[in-house]
Amino acid sequence: MAYAGYGGYSAPGGYGGPGGFSRPATGPPHGADPQLWAWFTAVDTDGSGAVGAHELEKALINGDWTPFDLDTVKLLMSMFDVDRSGTIGFNEFCGLWKYIKDWQNVFRHFDRDQSGSIDRNELRDALSQFGYNLSPQLIGLVQAKYDIKASAVVTGHGPPPGITFDRFVRACVVIKQLSEAFQRLDTDRDGWVQISYDQFMQTVLSLP
Amino acid sequence: MAYAGYGGYSAPGGYGGPGGFSRPATGPPHGADPQLWAWFTAVDTDGSGAVGAHELEKALINGDWTPFDLDTVKLLMSMFDVDRSGTIGFNEFCGLWKYIKDWQNVFRHFDRDQSGSIDRNELRDALSQFGYNLSPQLIGLVQAKYDIKASAVVTGHGPPPGITFDRFVRACVVIKQLSEAFQRLDTDRDGWVQISYDQFMQTVLSLP
Repeated sequence: MAYAGYGGYSAPGGYGGPGGFSRPATGPPHGADPQLWAWFTAVDTDGSGAVGAHELEKALINGDWTPFDLDTVKLLMSMFDVDRSGTIGFNEFCGLWKYIKDWQNVFRHFDRDQSGSIDRNELRDALSQFGYNLSPQLIGLVQAKYDIKASAVVTGHGPPPGITFDRFVRACVVIKQLSEAFQRLDTDRDGWVQISYDQFMQTVLSLP
Repeated sequence: MAYAGYGGYSAPGGYGGPGGFSRPATGPPHGADPQLWAWFTAVDTDGSGAVGAHELEKALINGDWTPFDLDTVKLLMSMFDVDRSGTIGFNEFCGLWKYIKDWQNVFRHFDRDQSGSIDRNELRDALSQFGYNLSPQLIGLVQAKYDIKASAVVTGHGPPPGITFDRFVRACVVIKQLSEAFQRLDTDRDGWVQISYDQFMQTVLSLP
């Protein structure tokens, strides 16, 4: 089975804690990390007490100082907005913050040449360690999809080739979600599924 | 077969013309529509001779004056950037312009109550006319995915419930691409495919 293995290095898990308490209008909730609270209030530029996608987009910066792309921001929001309010409250923000920190460690681990981006071999090693033994063709497809430079003319300026941090997280999360969707259908675990048009559409359209 | 029918009203087709000639540094190419040229140069705010995603995002406005969402802009760019330059040249722009105009007519046709957005019944009718006879459950899933209001708390301001023009186009294009991907696998046309993990990942990751 291509997807059933589990490597020694695992991708950060999603947010498992309780969600969505209302914070008081003034001051942090009891027991809050003061540093995280300070960062949350800085990101919440309109002072609404919750962080929207565009506020988050402005706050999340890659190692090369480029902003996170909006698709990754929206994916993260869909994972951590556990009360489905459309915004990220302080508790949700704490989960998101830890998740990004965990991914930063993963990224540094697999960026072996310390280039600040993930090349094809580094991507293959990372996905293999996460338990996804994808074919070389599929690795190439993922690399082409998430490496900005691979899909545009190289103009000589902008980020260097390779997958930036934000898009690396997105690639890994998408592969995880697709693999899990497939596994749910593959009840006999033989790596093949028989699937109707309706099931196929349901499966893919249910992904964030 | 759920997806094999073809209705009397068809979704606009993609760009079929030749792509990517260089325009002269000054003035429109020979035979260009003067109005389209004027709009192209207005959208090309940095005067580079080609339109990028963010320039296009600023230029595309829904009937309710909200801007197109970036995902739709990027989907349109992927369809019309036929020379894979990462930007839209004038010829590509002409194709995109016609495509959006065609979709506007389709949208007006199916927005029967003239509300400026597509509700669930209108969506069902449109997809059915395009030849996609999706189950009620699947229609509900598409509605929830592409209706902004359905996935966020109703705050009393912002666009009314229903699918806006930009997201209607995206929903229809995504359903078309998913259906075509399934059809390519369904070689005996019985509405079922047997698919391996690798094929499943290839199919979904190959979509824009």
